[in-house]
Amino acid sequence: MEWIVEQDNVVTQVHHNVDKVVWSGKSAFQEILLAQNSLYGKFLILDGDFQSSTSDSFIYHESLVHPVMLAHPKPQRVAILGGGEGATLYEVLRHPSVYKVYNIDLDRVVVDVCRRLAPEFHHGAFDDPRVQLVFDDALRFLETTSEAFDVILSDLTEPHPDSPTHALLGPRFFQLLARRLAPGGVVGLQASRGDLGLLQGVEQICREANAVFSHLRLMMTYVPSFHCNWCFLSASQQHDPAGLSLEEIRTRLHERGLNNLAHYDVETHRRITSLPLYLRKAVRCWTEARQLV
Amino acid sequence: MEWIVEQDNVVTQVHHNVDKVVWSGKSAFQEILLAQNSLYGKFLILDGDFQSSTSDSFIYHESLVHPVMLAHPKPQRVAILGGGEGATLYEVLRHPSVYKVYNIDLDRVVVDVCRRLAPEFHHGAFDDPRVQLVFDDALRFLETTSEAFDVILSDLTEPHPDSPTHALLGPRFFQLLARRLAPGGVVGLQASRGDLGLLQGVEQICREANAVFSHLRLMMTYVPSFHCNWCFLSASQQHDPAGLSLEEIRTRLHERGLNNLAHYDVETHRRITSLPLYLRKAVRCWTEARQLV
Amino acid sequence: MEWIVEQDNVVTQVHHNVDKVVWSGKSAFQEILLAQNSLYGKFLILDGDFQSSTSDSFIYHESLVHPVMLAHPKPQRVAILGGGEGATLYEVLRHPSVYKVYNIDLDRVVVDVCRRLAPEFHHGAFDDPRVQLVFDDALRFLETTSEAFDVILSDLTEPHPDSPTHALLGPRFFQLLARRLAPGGVVGLQASRGDLGLLQGVEQICREANAVFSHLRLMMTYVPSFHCNWCFLSASQQHDPAGLSLEEIRTRLHERGLNNLAHYDVETHRRITSLPLYLRKAVRCWTEARQLV
Amino acid sequence: MEWIVEQDNVVTQVHHNVDKVVWSGKSAFQEILLAQNSLYGKFLILDGDFQSSTSDSFIYHESLVHPVMLAHPKPQRVAILGGGEGATLYEVLRHPSVYKVYNIDLDRVVVDVCRRLAPEFHHGAFDDPRVQLVFDDALRFLETTSEAFDVILSDLTEPHPDSPTHALLGPRFFQLLARRLAPGGVVGLQASRGDLGLLQGVEQICREANAVFSHLRLMMTYVPSFHCNWCFLSASQQHDPAGLSLEEIRTRLHERGLNNLAHYDVETHRRITSLPLYLRKAVRCWTEARQLV
Repeated sequence: MEWIVEQDNVVTQVHHNVDKVVWSGKSAFQEILLAQNSLYGKFLILDGDFQSSTSDSFIYHESLVHPVMLAHPKPQRVAILGGGEGATLYEVLRHPSVYKVYNIDLDRVVVDVCRRLAPEFHHGAFDDPRVQLVFDDALRFLETTSEAFDVILSDLTEPHPDSPTHALLGPRFFQLLARRLAPGGVVGLQASRGDLGLLQGVEQICREANAVFSHLRLMMTYVPSFHCNWCFLSASQQHDPAGLSLEEIRTRLHERGLNNLAHYDVETHRRITSLPLYLRKAVRCWTEARQLV
Repeated sequence: MEWIVEQDNVVTQVHHNVDKVVWSGKSAFQEILLAQNSLYGKFLILDGDFQSSTSDSFIYHESLVHPVMLAHPKPQRVAILGGGEGATLYEVLRHPSVYKVYNIDLDRVVVDVCRRLAPEFHHGAFDDPRVQLVFDDALRFLETTSEAFDVILSDLTEPHPDSPTHALLGPRFFQLLARRLAPGGVVGLQASRGDLGLLQGVEQICREANAVFSHLRLMMTYVPSFHCNWCFLSASQQHDPAGLSLEEIRTRLHERGLNNLAHYDVETHRRITSLPLYLRKAVRCWTEARQLV
Repeated sequence: MEWIVEQDNVVTQVHHNVDKVVWSGKSAFQEILLAQNSLYGKFLILDGDFQSSTSDSFIYHESLVHPVMLAHPKPQRVAILGGGEGATLYEVLRHPSVYKVYNIDLDRVVVDVCRRLAPEFHHGAFDDPRVQLVFDDALRFLETTSEAFDVILSDLTEPHPDSPTHALLGPRFFQLLARRLAPGGVVGLQASRGDLGLLQGVEQICREANAVFSHLRLMMTYVPSFHCNWCFLSASQQHDPAGLSLEEIRTRLHERGLNNLAHYDVETHRRITSLPLYLRKAVRCWTEARQLV
Repeated sequence: MEWIVEQDNVVTQVHHNVDKVVWSGKSAFQEILLAQNSLYGKFLILDGDFQSSTSDSFIYHESLVHPVMLAHPKPQRVAILGGGEGATLYEVLRHPSVYKVYNIDLDRVVVDVCRRLAPEFHHGAFDDPRVQLVFDDALRFLETTSEAFDVILSDLTEPHPDSPTHALLGPRFFQLLARRLAPGGVVGLQASRGDLGLLQGVEQICREANAVFSHLRLMMTYVPSFHCNWCFLSASQQHDPAGLSLEEIRTRLHERGLNNLAHYDVETHRRITSLPLYLRKAVRCWTEARQLV
């Protein structure tokens, strides 16, 4: 039997069974493995880190995309940093006001492999005429583009010491995010794991974002194939996903034809925006004053 | 290195490192292992199943105990089925109206080992004069006792085919729970894992409870050392933890001196009573009509 | 990290790290994985079973091939059953008297993958003009060929219940082996693991061979990447590798230009033909009377 | 399920299942675990290193003890360094000429646990009136004793950086061994693993012994529960286990009533004294000139 072993934390390993290797190889940037088993469907591993599985990709990507997209009254121009398997792109395109999406991923091989071999992630989204694929470093894109975006979604891989994203998460990155937003724009970031005792990643992201944005909203959802909670941060000078009443969220979902999502609805919104006490304590100084309505 | 391996589901194993075996042995009912590592503190394994760790026991046990205890306006007589490590007992005794708690556990050895070697679970609760320890089968206790309880908490081990609790979770058990409640009484049950695709356990408990009780409330919280979401069910003919407004919950916590818990407060209440869509769909037919206020 | 896990026996697993997947896929007959790591070099896994690694392939294949080939005074026509990675073929072709080798493997994909991507196994042997590749079932080949062989080497995969070789190892197979030998011919078989308490496989092969052949010689060598001892059986109506004196072996090695092998020489011969007592006891009734000179 | 994981080498782990923990605890010197499963019987783990299992202890300990004891014509006074589970002691006492054995082990707890809970290792040997137990450092014992021994057996744990035996294996140790031998005395040492590519340990021991002793004889046997080959070195100024003819070995075994051992006999002797070529190459410069008869 073939297994992918993740050192989940200092004392725990999660072992994921591989029934079949769909594709594996090394790009210029990372080791890529697209594997498959009976519970996860297909799943993507980059440099040994679990990224997404087709069975519960909807949980992660609906949580990353929809609260932030709904917080904006009419998102038209969107940039996605990372997200090479296309699931973020798919969710973004479901908002009918969107007419242009830049998807910036460093690694053309990841995109090609998922586009060809794992349509369950993207449902053909790469072929949508509103999409522009850019193969570049996220920071360089932000530095060089002249566009202004209503929403920027950061779905970059975790910044491990050897990862291509390691140098990314500093003040420069957050300043660029703010600068590339159109007025009223909103940023959504995957914000690392949310487990008791393992909160350094989310703490850092909240601290950096807090130096630049006036409205922060931290959210968290459990992702079954990750075997842990995952955090998402909305950051903006104006909007806050939890600034909307539940009734307003229901109305916006309905207006945009999104009342049939698989994970996100009003009750899920209430769950993911209500955080357990240990997480609130860890990030309180950066998020509290701003986020409590 | 020594590891405890849990076959989490058909394709995933979780491996927990053991720094030190605190106690291990076989009682008349099960294999018992009390182990220790740097992240979990001490943790209890019964017949190979992870039960609790001292590092996050508060997350599980506050979620099991407080919503149900608060739903009752004045819980005085309480029964706990299982819960041999004493953490359920500890949380129950923090409610000042309580004057009698029966703790019924099949296995005297589990209680003795935890009482002596893992006070982090129970903080001395077994020595409280309000406590009566009963070493008996939970079903037989319910059949033979003449007491009526304001709250019954079921914290039994998972009913695997070889487990001493396997025969328990049928109609007889739920009828006895209902019969042993005082008027206005509430039952709280640990209700198995809450992960996408692995919901047979919680579905069965909701179905059985639905046949006997008119008010069901399903809750769910993530437990870090379990690496999954865990469900808790409140069942009653009258009360519902989510029938209280957030303001009423805040008031009751304050009145009972419980405004300094480590996990449970008003926002955590909102999180654990708001369920992700996939879980609501799975248990809708049993819980929906009743639980939505 | 990616691992191949072998359930070595009822209580032991061996976990082999995968640095890189060289090739993986599914043929009509089996799952094929050619992987690589820093100690084993490349290694071949068929249906989850470890087959060979390029780092110690010489230990296994020299032990399978040379004792049997040397026992025959002048092997000219040879058949190899299985052995798709080409290492058996390579060792056979080093005997200068050989002028025709049939290599019969069920699975063209295994041969193609190893031929192209793992020359360390075969050193180009597939291109030798003396070689005829046959992609067929071993049993059917033996039934239909009209050739007579001086040596037949059986390097088939282990006959697990789901394996393509499961139906093979019965009386019919051994009768066909005997029938397809030229006068004075010798058969060499990989004969399963040789570990205390796990000898059912080698016992069965010795029992079956004993029904047909008058000279049996069991040998055993340790294969590092297998993490266990492996058995090899020589079966013949006339010859016995241990019927030669050490001096005769030395002479034949010299005459054939094989005095520079990496594993097999006179002292290794003495080791692999001297068996530990527990193995001799297990197979005594079939091998003893015949093999002790 | 509970597992002991050994990092066997840089890319391989061996996972041993634990059915039951018989005893575990920490002494002044090391972590001690005596566990049990269905294939190994009981097995001893010190600081995470597998030491012995009752199922195949006879393979290791007969190989360590009998070749060396037989090489001496009449061993009367014996010292055992390490060997706290008592299996070396048991094998030594089977030689009828022995009238005094010192067993020097650092750790009284290991001896007590095995003596009381694992008699399968020692068969009561600790109670033999010829035995003197000494709880001391092996080096200090050799420095301070005034005894001279016919045979000294070193069965110390592997000298990992954190192990109590780490400082032991230097020139001083081998000089003391030589000095404490009676004329014609023989030393036997467990000499680390014997696997291709992992021979640094055995190379070091041969090099050190070569500086002091004129007769070296390296032997190797496979130990099933170790999942690897293990080396044993005989070192003496006079005797060599392989200096005896097979007939002489048979005679000595018979004279001493040892013709019914479970592993060691004449054929096993031939196996364990015949080494595979890769091992001979690695240690040739220290052993060759001396050992080939």
